[in-house]
Amino acid sequence: MKQVVIIGSGNVATSLAHGLSARCVVAQIFSRQLFHARLLADAIGCPLATDDLMALVPDADAYIVAVRDDVIADVVDAVPDNGALWLHTSGSKGIDLFKGHRAHYGVLWPMQSFSREVVVALDDVHFFAEASDKKTLEHLMALGHLISHHVIEADSDKRRRLHVASVFSCNFANHMWTLADEVLGDAGLPFDALLPLIRTTVDKLSSLSPAKSQTGPAIRHDTQVLDSHLAMLDGDKREIYRLLSDSIMNRNPLDDNAK
Amino acid sequence: MKQVVIIGSGNVATSLAHGLSARCVVAQIFSRQLFHARLLADAIGCPLATDDLMALVPDADAYIVAVRDDVIADVVDAVPDNGALWLHTSGSKGIDLFKGHRAHYGVLWPMQSFSREVVVALDDVHFFAEASDKKTLEHLMALGHLISHHVIEADSDKRRRLHVASVFSCNFANHMWTLADEVLGDAGLPFDALLPLIRTTVDKLSSLSPAKSQTGPAIRHDTQVLDSHLAMLDGDKREIYRLLSDSIMNRNPLDDNAK
Repeated sequence: MKQVVIIGSGNVATSLAHGLSARCVVAQIFSRQLFHARLLADAIGCPLATDDLMALVPDADAYIVAVRDDVIADVVDAVPDNGALWLHTSGSKGIDLFKGHRAHYGVLWPMQSFSREVVVALDDVHFFAEASDKKTLEHLMALGHLISHHVIEADSDKRRRLHVASVFSCNFANHMWTLADEVLGDAGLPFDALLPLIRTTVDKLSSLSPAKSQTGPAIRHDTQVLDSHLAMLDGDKREIYRLLSDSIMNRNPLDDNAK
Repeated sequence: MKQVVIIGSGNVATSLAHGLSARCVVAQIFSRQLFHARLLADAIGCPLATDDLMALVPDADAYIVAVRDDVIADVVDAVPDNGALWLHTSGSKGIDLFKGHRAHYGVLWPMQSFSREVVVALDDVHFFAEASDKKTLEHLMALGHLISHHVIEADSDKRRRLHVASVFSCNFANHMWTLADEVLGDAGLPFDALLPLIRTTVDKLSSLSPAKSQTGPAIRHDTQVLDSHLAMLDGDKREIYRLLSDSIMNRNPLDDNAK
């Protein structure tokens, strides 16, 4: 794998560009906005930036389509096959959107949460790979191993499950912290006071399953506390508090609990 | 603060007993089950264990009532005042349940999630303190500073908000991981694959607010992905997925988002 073209300049494209540029040649960055393409290209020392899909360099070894899920197919449709390896990086899109449009194709999905503000080190990120055929899978795995220690074969169904699990683990857990911040914000208390608590909660996962490390008023079926908390909340925070407490209680019938 | 009696042998009592025994004398452990009192006393080298509230040593400097929220008042009612400092460790119970029963009393609430299996280092845990009078508050803060760098005065209202925020931050975030584990479990995928993702999500909180570091299909208003995920889920996981996605979307109207 010598030359790679990255199509996209968003969160995933940015982290991939940084990770790949240290291990192979990123030949070109495409973005619909030339300014974004140029910014990312400059950041990783890549010579070419373009906003024109017709101006992609034709002879790269791999083309990584790291754009919003709903425009991947548009990119694939717009560019004719050049026989290279084409792949997308989506956890929720299937491999089939390349079918009939490319000879060698696949999916390389980094199960990680990216934001443009923080470049994520990819070494320990789990990448899940699927390809059109065995040889292409080898190429795809080799590309993945350039940037990560964990490249695992996974078909669409497994990938979809992993994606859903990552939404719960990361997007929804983070939203719990947003809601906590809102609760504190009203009283002028700093969110930082919660960080040791949050870190301990995560650290426990190394030795206990999340189900086993669950604590709090819901698992104790402490309805007095639950009711007093509900009385303090309004809007969707109240509805969420109720639904999640019920969900915890239903999985943990009274008996085996103590404070 | 020379001698402390710990009433309780649950998660909070266990961590407090370990923390305090290194900095002062834990004179006695009470539990309704003598076996549990003895187990904890032995673990920290405390000589006395009892299951009889009438047999508490009478001359300790402080009595820490670290039992289930709904039985704190029973303990206070059952034991006559001896003029010492009495305190409970609940985030949700008020200070008033000591009123008329004790001369010097307070609350010292560690905002942390405890489980009996893991003894938590208390140094960086935030303790929130409230007391019956100024002098008692000094004693209480001094006791807190024996085991933590962070002892902050907070009245009942602030404490209740902090408690609600900790339920969202810790109990509910952990429940998200339980649900993720369930999603993966069905397909024989290991929960450990999610740990790097979870750690990165937490690490971001040091530099970005949770609202600013939110990612995922909901904040992108990616209804195709949302619908495909909903179709895979059933039971309360489906309901939770829908409610939390709506909650994220409502806080983040379309515009300022890109993958």
